[in-house]
Amino acid sequence: MTNEEKAEELLYDVIILGAGPAGLSAAIYTIRKAMKTLILSKDVGGQLTWTSDVDNYLGFSQVNALELVAKFEEHVRRFNVERAIGVDVAEVFPAGPVKRVVTRDGRSYRGKTIIIATGGRHKPLNIPGEREYVGKGVSYCSTCDAPLYAGADVAVIGGGNSALGAAIDLMGIANKIHLIFLMPELTGDPVYQARVRQSEKVVILPQCEPTRIFGRDYVEGIEYRGMQSGEIKTLAVEGVFIEIGTLPNSGLFSHILTTNEKGEILVDHECRTGLAGVFACGDVTNVPFKQVVVAVGEGSKAALSAYNYLISRA
Amino acid sequence: MTNEEKAEELLYDVIILGAGPAGLSAAIYTIRKAMKTLILSKDVGGQLTWTSDVDNYLGFSQVNALELVAKFEEHVRRFNVERAIGVDVAEVFPAGPVKRVVTRDGRSYRGKTIIIATGGRHKPLNIPGEREYVGKGVSYCSTCDAPLYAGADVAVIGGGNSALGAAIDLMGIANKIHLIFLMPELTGDPVYQARVRQSEKVVILPQCEPTRIFGRDYVEGIEYRGMQSGEIKTLAVEGVFIEIGTLPNSGLFSHILTTNEKGEILVDHECRTGLAGVFACGDVTNVPFKQVVVAVGEGSKAALSAYNYLISRA
Repeated sequence: MTNEEKAEELLYDVIILGAGPAGLSAAIYTIRKAMKTLILSKDVGGQLTWTSDVDNYLGFSQVNALELVAKFEEHVRRFNVERAIGVDVAEVFPAGPVKRVVTRDGRSYRGKTIIIATGGRHKPLNIPGEREYVGKGVSYCSTCDAPLYAGADVAVIGGGNSALGAAIDLMGIANKIHLIFLMPELTGDPVYQARVRQSEKVVILPQCEPTRIFGRDYVEGIEYRGMQSGEIKTLAVEGVFIEIGTLPNSGLFSHILTTNEKGEILVDHECRTGLAGVFACGDVTNVPFKQVVVAVGEGSKAALSAYNYLISRA
Repeated sequence: MTNEEKAEELLYDVIILGAGPAGLSAAIYTIRKAMKTLILSKDVGGQLTWTSDVDNYLGFSQVNALELVAKFEEHVRRFNVERAIGVDVAEVFPAGPVKRVVTRDGRSYRGKTIIIATGGRHKPLNIPGEREYVGKGVSYCSTCDAPLYAGADVAVIGGGNSALGAAIDLMGIANKIHLIFLMPELTGDPVYQARVRQSEKVVILPQCEPTRIFGRDYVEGIEYRGMQSGEIKTLAVEGVFIEIGTLPNSGLFSHILTTNEKGEILVDHECRTGLAGVFACGDVTNVPFKQVVVAVGEGSKAALSAYNYLISRA
């Protein structure tokens, strides 16, 4: 019998879906509670691998995001937790005392509880140069990266609340902020709009479509097309903040669990969903502020909550 | 004008009460959001200074608690946050757009927002040897420290849910667990009682009062008195888990903010209390699972929430 076949035979105390900050933190806690744990995930690190430096995870000053992922992995590895990485989950049957997770390669795993830590994803622009310059000028998180652009010219892509929030974050730091968006008007909250309009640093460019990000080692500029004129223009910028929204990775659960209008899974202070034995944590939930340290805290809550659920039924 | 006098003149964007994990994490975020920040606290590190090793703060494997506090402090210090440590807060006036904090030495500070991160405290036994052996056999956190007692004989003090939870945590790890408590019967949930009673490892000692913890470099035993016989007995144990409950440090706020039956301040997912501009995070709140990493996550939520409050009013 292969290891994979053995894992299919077992009944786990908990199956953790996802190995980003929330899932890994959950694993530390379930293992310490002596719960038989399996992690299933496509990758390790989740959205952390999309950022550059992290300076707001208490205890780590200015750590590189990939180094932080390595630290996280090393910590979890010390606990010998069983895991399958590179795995796509195809279907989850979360009702009843024995839950089942089926992967795209046809394997099926059984668990008494499930912790959903599948995270979220930033909507990408899907233009040339974008993926290439992630961490080299392209950012999806102004809270994380705005402080790196003191005195610099930058572009923010988007016209909603995330984009305006990024522009406001940057107003006290950067030199000039080009706000580039498709719609004829800004769509974020009026109070944010007012603050952005009042700033002399912000240049508002409605009805413009980003077409390319360019540079050498780091971003040097962005190219965009005026929707009405059809004209192609370029701007010299050192940073491009892409703030066109995020999406929770909740697709597998949206027909089973209660979600809000953004598709985020609703949880209470104990990371409980409405379904017994099913917990969720991190960016996939309605807990606001999509931050590494928040996800890590929520992961531990989900794990302790799953533990309490198990011992109350034992 | 002294620095203290200058601080009294200023109107801060945020005054953070407390410098444990929640307060320090909040400070990292408010500073990064360019909010004028003041931390007021009796000490640095909070309850962390009462534990020994921390092995469940994701990214730090088996770190000594005091080293972790030092890391936290160093991280916050890099941001040059203004703070007054060794300060006792006497009174808080949190209503209205300008909040006021008065310290026991008669100083008064003004802030547009307040973040309450005053933490909690474990009820101590107040017996000889207790404080002396903290981190050397005396523990207030079975989640943190149970794994250190593999194969050992230990005592758990208390008969409620925390004590039973500690005993259950230890059942899979320790050799023998003496459960010592004052009442004639266990008072925790029946399901926990049943699990503890089923275990051959647990010795239940009702109506017993701990009188002394003793040892040399580390704990070697506990002395207790039978309440009915008056007889003094000793037990050889390597660990003493004191689980007679915790108390939130919410006394200054209990007449102003809504609290639950434990005295914990009620907050929502964004760490908002019922009072505009007043946020709370960590062990002083109704968020369950009193863990460092949870407090750190909650601190960042409170800070981002305070920031959102400020910019929505600017």
